[in-house]
Amino acid sequence: MSTRIVEVRRGILKQNDQQAAVLRRRFQEAGVTVVSLVSSPGAGKTEFLRRTLEALRGAGHRVAAIVGDLETDNDARRLAEAGVPVRQIVTHGRCHLEAEWVGEHLEGWALDQLDYLFIENVGNLVCPASYDLGEQVRAVLLSVTEGEDKPLKYPTIFNSADLAVITKVDLAAAVEFDRAAALASIESVRPGLRVLEVSAKRGTGMAEWLALLGAYRPAAAPATPDA
Amino acid sequence: MSTRIVEVRRGILKQNDQQAAVLRRRFQEAGVTVVSLVSSPGAGKTEFLRRTLEALRGAGHRVAAIVGDLETDNDARRLAEAGVPVRQIVTHGRCHLEAEWVGEHLEGWALDQLDYLFIENVGNLVCPASYDLGEQVRAVLLSVTEGEDKPLKYPTIFNSADLAVITKVDLAAAVEFDRAAALASIESVRPGLRVLEVSAKRGTGMAEWLALLGAYRPAAAPATPDA
Repeated sequence: MSTRIVEVRRGILKQNDQQAAVLRRRFQEAGVTVVSLVSSPGAGKTEFLRRTLEALRGAGHRVAAIVGDLETDNDARRLAEAGVPVRQIVTHGRCHLEAEWVGEHLEGWALDQLDYLFIENVGNLVCPASYDLGEQVRAVLLSVTEGEDKPLKYPTIFNSADLAVITKVDLAAAVEFDRAAALASIESVRPGLRVLEVSAKRGTGMAEWLALLGAYRPAAAPATPDA
Repeated sequence: MSTRIVEVRRGILKQNDQQAAVLRRRFQEAGVTVVSLVSSPGAGKTEFLRRTLEALRGAGHRVAAIVGDLETDNDARRLAEAGVPVRQIVTHGRCHLEAEWVGEHLEGWALDQLDYLFIENVGNLVCPASYDLGEQVRAVLLSVTEGEDKPLKYPTIFNSADLAVITKVDLAAAVEFDRAAALASIESVRPGLRVLEVSAKRGTGMAEWLALLGAYRPAAAPATPDA
């Protein structure tokens, strides 16, 4: 990579970091828990998120989602089936989301009326790694159909995550998934990273995921005496 | 994207195109058929290629492979099981291969002693699209586990390909793969693109693929009279 490109790229990343810091402050002040999802294309982000939105809404939580794709608003339409507000960012060829675009797509949403905001990044194991979106939690998804050594091949994105979610575990036997090898791969690139194992389709592991989402909520503020 | 980045990027792409043209001429003069594979991470490129190398070698063809990954030489080691020469390009974070790196990794190989050279690109549906590697045929792989609308979301890479290969068809029923929707997605972004449907694991569709590879070989030159 030439020096000039590195410089230009650093400039963009620095700008993004500043905008992400502004977003993070906004999210904290509004009391909304922001969770982003990253993965390769086809790891099952949208289905996992759709079931999550449905479950949270069913439990009385106020939720919304922003979803990124290079082209099409297919995912936003799928997610809207969950009956929650969803907005699509079409990146027209850019392989990641940036904090600025997330900020633009929040316009008109009362963040302090939300418990959770989910951001589904573009399906890519490389580009999204370097772009902070101001999220509180970044979950990297890895499906059992992808190969157990993906963390070794894409260490940066696993290092940028707060949580790994192994998806499509209902297919584990059919694809001869080597669970121990996958867990060892994750552990070797990111020691101690928490790992959930889920099947959105069958509901496996979803209770643990929802409990974890509950733990991410800020503790209720003590009741303030009337003014 | 700022004007400056666009300019820098255009410069790199132009340089790559020139180097790819040089490679393409070398490959043609040597009479080697060069096939590249692109896909998202986990679509099954390496397993598909391993079975292809084994079958071609078993049929008496002279084959070699170059494989790209961000990190690790796992894939080169897996492919070497097929008993053919394999070289790994580790890109250290770059999400595609470039023609120059392919050229460097050919050093010492007698191309005119090869029938086929395969190039497995980094698993990514975005970055590799713009980089010509001098290949004669570019195959884009899409597994049944990935979602039928991937061509609509990643049209550029499907447009850069000469062939689409739907992989892991043995899992089609388990993942409720909608074949008609997948074929319609491909057809809508790249009308007329040839589509193969394979399961490397079960051998489904591999005979058709091998026949197609045979058709890509240059017609035998007429025997020349003795000097």
